[in-house]
Amino acid sequence: MKIIMDCLGGDRSPDANVKGAVASLRKHADLSFALVGDEAALSAAVSDAGDVSDRIEIVHAPGVITGDDKPTDAIRLKKDSSMIAAIRLLREREDADALVSCGATGALVAAATLRIGRIRGIRRPAFCPILPTMDGGTVGICDSGANTDVTAEMLLQYAVMGTEYMRCVFGKKEPRVALLNVGTEAEKGDDLRREAYALLSAESGVNFVGNMESRDLLTGKYDVVVCDGFSGNVLVKTTEGTALELLKKLKRDIYSKTRYKLGAFIMKDMFAKEKAFMNYQNYGGSVLIGTEKTVIKGHGSSDAAAVEKCIEQAITIKAGAMNENISAWLTKREEEISNV
Amino acid sequence: MKIIMDCLGGDRSPDANVKGAVASLRKHADLSFALVGDEAALSAAVSDAGDVSDRIEIVHAPGVITGDDKPTDAIRLKKDSSMIAAIRLLREREDADALVSCGATGALVAAATLRIGRIRGIRRPAFCPILPTMDGGTVGICDSGANTDVTAEMLLQYAVMGTEYMRCVFGKKEPRVALLNVGTEAEKGDDLRREAYALLSAESGVNFVGNMESRDLLTGKYDVVVCDGFSGNVLVKTTEGTALELLKKLKRDIYSKTRYKLGAFIMKDMFAKEKAFMNYQNYGGSVLIGTEKTVIKGHGSSDAAAVEKCIEQAITIKAGAMNENISAWLTKREEEISNV
Repeated sequence: MKIIMDCLGGDRSPDANVKGAVASLRKHADLSFALVGDEAALSAAVSDAGDVSDRIEIVHAPGVITGDDKPTDAIRLKKDSSMIAAIRLLREREDADALVSCGATGALVAAATLRIGRIRGIRRPAFCPILPTMDGGTVGICDSGANTDVTAEMLLQYAVMGTEYMRCVFGKKEPRVALLNVGTEAEKGDDLRREAYALLSAESGVNFVGNMESRDLLTGKYDVVVCDGFSGNVLVKTTEGTALELLKKLKRDIYSKTRYKLGAFIMKDMFAKEKAFMNYQNYGGSVLIGTEKTVIKGHGSSDAAAVEKCIEQAITIKAGAMNENISAWLTKREEEISNV
Repeated sequence: MKIIMDCLGGDRSPDANVKGAVASLRKHADLSFALVGDEAALSAAVSDAGDVSDRIEIVHAPGVITGDDKPTDAIRLKKDSSMIAAIRLLREREDADALVSCGATGALVAAATLRIGRIRGIRRPAFCPILPTMDGGTVGICDSGANTDVTAEMLLQYAVMGTEYMRCVFGKKEPRVALLNVGTEAEKGDDLRREAYALLSAESGVNFVGNMESRDLLTGKYDVVVCDGFSGNVLVKTTEGTALELLKKLKRDIYSKTRYKLGAFIMKDMFAKEKAFMNYQNYGGSVLIGTEKTVIKGHGSSDAAAVEKCIEQAITIKAGAMNENISAWLTKREEEISNV
């Protein structure tokens, strides 16, 4: 298996990327990497890889795409950037299976959607991040921003993609799939939601459990939430933002009084655990599902361990034949539609 | 000023409603109420109102609409319910100015939107709850669920309605208005968002500060967030859900170890303050803006003080001529459009 690694754009790039790759190479004998970034920096970082260095190729592309770059401009104008070069390599090299990047999300999703071929029959790929739930589980949000305009058929495809992903990578046997809506009753929401509800209810390949109100996202009652990319984006970013702002406020309030500082000191290990719990890089990267080759976005602040987790996801997706399972469903669905 | 009070449907109804009304009557000599609910229960509750009881009228309508009732069915079938009777009174009585209810949100918003006349020129009323921000301020979300399908012109109207509301009730001079979007750049989102962005930028009556990503909702950088009712609903419920689930988890973790319980005991008053901070009933009710007569939805768990706050909002809205200011803008806008 060959993975293309975009080694720029993350807060700890390229070190975290290289260390994560080397750690994975030591675990998987059949793995190889193409590291994309600044050649001199990468050569230096790779110098102590020792025994696994013969499975590392370095590709020079020193430009960086940041969150300030407009995605469409970045794709068009920053051809020498590590991200766009990495996407090109993934597309052109037949032996390349997946891409891992900790760079700008918008540009990565846009470039991958445009440049990497889709699984035959998939209308549009979906971007699926994972959030921790309060019972210690996980929930995938499909889609969280790759496509703002969707149809009911696309939402049905997202449900299947999310199901196969949670099955493959998180070992959930019958992932509970919910449709994001403004209420739980079947008739809630707009025409799109009602049409999607009907399609999902009729689909035997999906364990559809009904509509979900966004306040229940973290309860642990759902494994996959299906939604258009606009409201999915709002769902994920509001969750992250609220958690972050609350923890910041708590910290500020603790520092406002010596007595609170004492109380917090007694609970220090508990607060550290809460912080780790809310740190979503501990749950792996966000996957673009529906492309022929897997694209994984690690968090911008990913360390070597987080990068390694993204690599493991890519390996599991290939080993678990996620795309083949999605393809099999699409063939079945096509037959169903043509039989109607 | 006469206020119609729906005295059923809240967790503490009718007591909290009656006590809230009586407290307001003692403060405002020109205020009167029509209390709608079960006549026997209301008569008993009003019996110790003493000097202000001559400004209380009781209207018998003992049925209750709950969150389990489908709004459209509730409107059609539960005509004897306190909520539908209260809406009817608000519409039919010329001297009635406003309605306060702590009942089911969906049914209230649907019934009021259908039955209460709109301000001339307003396309659709918007439902606007208030959330506390981390700097001790407030932010209004307009719309959070009255209309899932909107146009750019409606979003512009929401901006004006939200502006006048935050000015009138929260005393903000130049409320900072943001458009909810998937990124901050002007070209982000779908056609609807780009069109709304252009309209908002060109509107001198609104202090438009650009797109807002949902993760920044609680930072205190915005006073009004304009959005379609679907994503607004997701925005508000995700914020509430995340805060609630996090506080629940924190509590569970504290109870898991004696040492944590000790630490929390030392910080008891701080945690109580955090809880009160996140309790949105302390910030008043959610207002349906754009109807000729004001409809205010108190939180289901409202106590007498929270009900009194909703009443104060209704009084402030009338005294501050909120609807007249919205009307004046609409006239100006109509002229602008006809001049193009």
